[in-house]
Amino acid sequence: MDVFISGVGMTKFGKSTEPLESLMAEAALGALRGAGLEKVDAIYTGVMNIEEFVGDSNIGVLLVDTLGLSGIPSTRVETASSTGAGAFQTAFYSVASGHMKNVLVVAGEKMTHLTTAKTTRILSEVIDRSERRYGATMPALAAMIAQKYAWQYRLSSPALEEILSQVAIKNHFNGSFNPFAQFRKRISFEEYLRSPIVSYPLRLYDCAPITDGAAAMVLTAEPTDVKISGIGHATDTLAVRHRATLTSFNSTKEAALRAYSMAQVNPSDIQFAEVHDAFTPFEIIGTEDLGFFPPGKGGNALRDGVTGLRGKLPINPSGGLKSRGHPVGASGLAQLVEIVWQLRGEAGEGRQLKKAEIGLAQSIGGLGNNNLVTILERRDRRKTVVPGWELRYRPEIRSGKKASDPSLEEGVGILETFTILHSPPEGFRSPLSLGFVKLKKGGRIMVCNPEYRLPEQLKIGKKVYVFTREGLYVFERRSFWSRLKQWLKGR
Amino acid sequence: MDVFISGVGMTKFGKSTEPLESLMAEAALGALRGAGLEKVDAIYTGVMNIEEFVGDSNIGVLLVDTLGLSGIPSTRVETASSTGAGAFQTAFYSVASGHMKNVLVVAGEKMTHLTTAKTTRILSEVIDRSERRYGATMPALAAMIAQKYAWQYRLSSPALEEILSQVAIKNHFNGSFNPFAQFRKRISFEEYLRSPIVSYPLRLYDCAPITDGAAAMVLTAEPTDVKISGIGHATDTLAVRHRATLTSFNSTKEAALRAYSMAQVNPSDIQFAEVHDAFTPFEIIGTEDLGFFPPGKGGNALRDGVTGLRGKLPINPSGGLKSRGHPVGASGLAQLVEIVWQLRGEAGEGRQLKKAEIGLAQSIGGLGNNNLVTILERRDRRKTVVPGWELRYRPEIRSGKKASDPSLEEGVGILETFTILHSPPEGFRSPLSLGFVKLKKGGRIMVCNPEYRLPEQLKIGKKVYVFTREGLYVFERRSFWSRLKQWLKGR
Repeated sequence: MDVFISGVGMTKFGKSTEPLESLMAEAALGALRGAGLEKVDAIYTGVMNIEEFVGDSNIGVLLVDTLGLSGIPSTRVETASSTGAGAFQTAFYSVASGHMKNVLVVAGEKMTHLTTAKTTRILSEVIDRSERRYGATMPALAAMIAQKYAWQYRLSSPALEEILSQVAIKNHFNGSFNPFAQFRKRISFEEYLRSPIVSYPLRLYDCAPITDGAAAMVLTAEPTDVKISGIGHATDTLAVRHRATLTSFNSTKEAALRAYSMAQVNPSDIQFAEVHDAFTPFEIIGTEDLGFFPPGKGGNALRDGVTGLRGKLPINPSGGLKSRGHPVGASGLAQLVEIVWQLRGEAGEGRQLKKAEIGLAQSIGGLGNNNLVTILERRDRRKTVVPGWELRYRPEIRSGKKASDPSLEEGVGILETFTILHSPPEGFRSPLSLGFVKLKKGGRIMVCNPEYRLPEQLKIGKKVYVFTREGLYVFERRSFWSRLKQWLKGR
Repeated sequence: MDVFISGVGMTKFGKSTEPLESLMAEAALGALRGAGLEKVDAIYTGVMNIEEFVGDSNIGVLLVDTLGLSGIPSTRVETASSTGAGAFQTAFYSVASGHMKNVLVVAGEKMTHLTTAKTTRILSEVIDRSERRYGATMPALAAMIAQKYAWQYRLSSPALEEILSQVAIKNHFNGSFNPFAQFRKRISFEEYLRSPIVSYPLRLYDCAPITDGAAAMVLTAEPTDVKISGIGHATDTLAVRHRATLTSFNSTKEAALRAYSMAQVNPSDIQFAEVHDAFTPFEIIGTEDLGFFPPGKGGNALRDGVTGLRGKLPINPSGGLKSRGHPVGASGLAQLVEIVWQLRGEAGEGRQLKKAEIGLAQSIGGLGNNNLVTILERRDRRKTVVPGWELRYRPEIRSGKKASDPSLEEGVGILETFTILHSPPEGFRSPLSLGFVKLKKGGRIMVCNPEYRLPEQLKIGKKVYVFTREGLYVFERRSFWSRLKQWLKGR
């Protein structure tokens, strides 16, 4: 059974003094109003972590009660930072089953009332426990992925910096037209450069902010002007070190493969997309994973203006997570609200796209391991599906696999990537160097060393020495003997 | 599209040193083995609060990764303490939609590693914030419901005690045959009486224990011997004081109405049931809400042996939450595993029922506000549905409604129910008397007074005086003037 979208709603994203359930109710009432409904058959709520952010539980009932709709079934859905998209897909199945006619999806998060240190700790709980023990945070892992990407595609540090800054500058520009965005201020390259390093090479302006907000949508079996034409969801290993590749997200590719197949469209049919830019490198990688550009070419497309508001394939016309803000549970649904507004020509001056008949949203859960892809189109879109239609999206699927860490007293390997983390979680020294090492004897491990404080001290692709200290793998550029020799010389 | 059940799996419930994901993987592998599958199209995980119990997040990926099945979509579902049933229903829709063929549901919780005080605090987060501020816990609210039930149906304290004890004794007897149960020890009335009061009149043996465990099931579009014939889910107000009635759960009735209608069966067709007995009074109320017995008559049926293992309508043949244990996220699915075992004749000696062609499970989320009812039947069951079939389940649906608390400096009302709580959360005096007062000017409020320490001091239906102290409503049996007079006399 086909599923359509009627009403959509959203709060302004940013800092709010309202409690979570009020934000979610505000968005929900907007969606119900848009749908011309007072009741629905079921509610799906998406919140990533109300337990620790707010200290409440049972959000399904808290919301339905706040809406004065007690009685209606209400179920909470969570897929880490893609939760909004996860709740949407769950709601999709309930309507597609024929058991529900109108279903409300409401996604939100309340985060700004806590300290950044506490929020960082809570957000870090999506990370593999072993990697967390090193002090790895989401920005740190994203930074290591960016470094590896630059190395693989032979981008110099300034070239990487240019690309990342342009993602931020473009999305802040787009967001300046979005009345629902947290930041409506455009930024320049100079301002970008002045923002502090969070985890080298990522600056504050490379990271989506901490945000309160909610989005909502009514899904319906009744045909409307917007149809859900493709959905896909896939996972990857929890630990980044268990991935088959660090420079693309296999879970995006597998999810996209399902969504494109179901919608019977190719990447070239997509006219615009919302791509999960919690960190600027993720937008570049996302546009490659989705088949818009070949691997390593996402940065060129951006530089050439292809992904700009007036480009051939606008990416994040809303301003993205970067400028709209990132209430983790809400973002996946907020992306879809933007797609609906664009398809309906309701995005407003400045950001309304001329060609908006079919759009795609990609949402990343955790550190790229719980990703969803959704394709929405206008019901009146002229279809190009002909007999003999062929899916031309053939991504290189490379599945990771959970593995035990090698048992190691000391060893030798190659430094695959690294970062210098300047805002580690409580209890860790700052700055803190973290890296991944490919061991000579096989396997990839996470490593750390608080003594490397400058990126110039480290080089990807170089041999490093690894030893175990207090249960953690510590890496050194030089062997124990060479360090001993130097130490003796220095005496 | 019809949905069937193939494999089921379960861990032994109890205290475990295994991490949550290992417990869930163990149950999942059992279900996959039973289904003869190595892979599925999607996984739904049910965990109520991994965030605070375990300090992790992103359980969907943690589980899929532990199973070595990275790639497969994995979504976490939560409906408070009915989470296992909530995940099951969500999975049902995904298969019923025709988009999925085989789906794995895995539900679990890890709780025993924390102190009881901490666990109580975490479990209390499902309670309305205002009621929590009084120190209300789940046992305290359940106790107040039991007291009101006894008052409404004119049960003396010994009569109530007899009924509640018999629920516990019956379920411990049933559980003695269940190798997966946490407690396999039968208990006597004397042992029941020796167990300490948790919240008057509820004793330790009236409350389900704190438990680790997981259950799993594969749902499939391929016809098997067990069919999902009815599902229903409904909510009620978060606050107990906003309910239309305190002696039945409207959310059970609305959920049951949907499940019976969908399955086209009447309560009299059900041959056995698993009923959410987190607190013994809930089993009595559950059997009435489900239409098995008239309101107020559940205790009689129990006393007459109707709900015993060899009775006409066995309730909780597994031993229920009471004896099997209550890992909050898992219980709703563990109930359904028991139903499948019974339908397949696999429940084992002692507890296998003779008549087991159709069974029902009722799961309560929160304090009776997020409830689900599921009906499973053997595919070869002889149907009695004839043209002109009529649903004879017509419960009295009485919806609650969120309301603002009356603004009150002091007032007069009737004590509707009360409890003396002996294990309040940290920061509250013990014992602590809590109650609900129906105000003369309208509205129901929660009240407290740490000075009433004995149930004999209080009487339901009597006039009480209420005043505000430190933002809480405190109640007194006597007015300010009468207390002043006595105080003056005493000087």
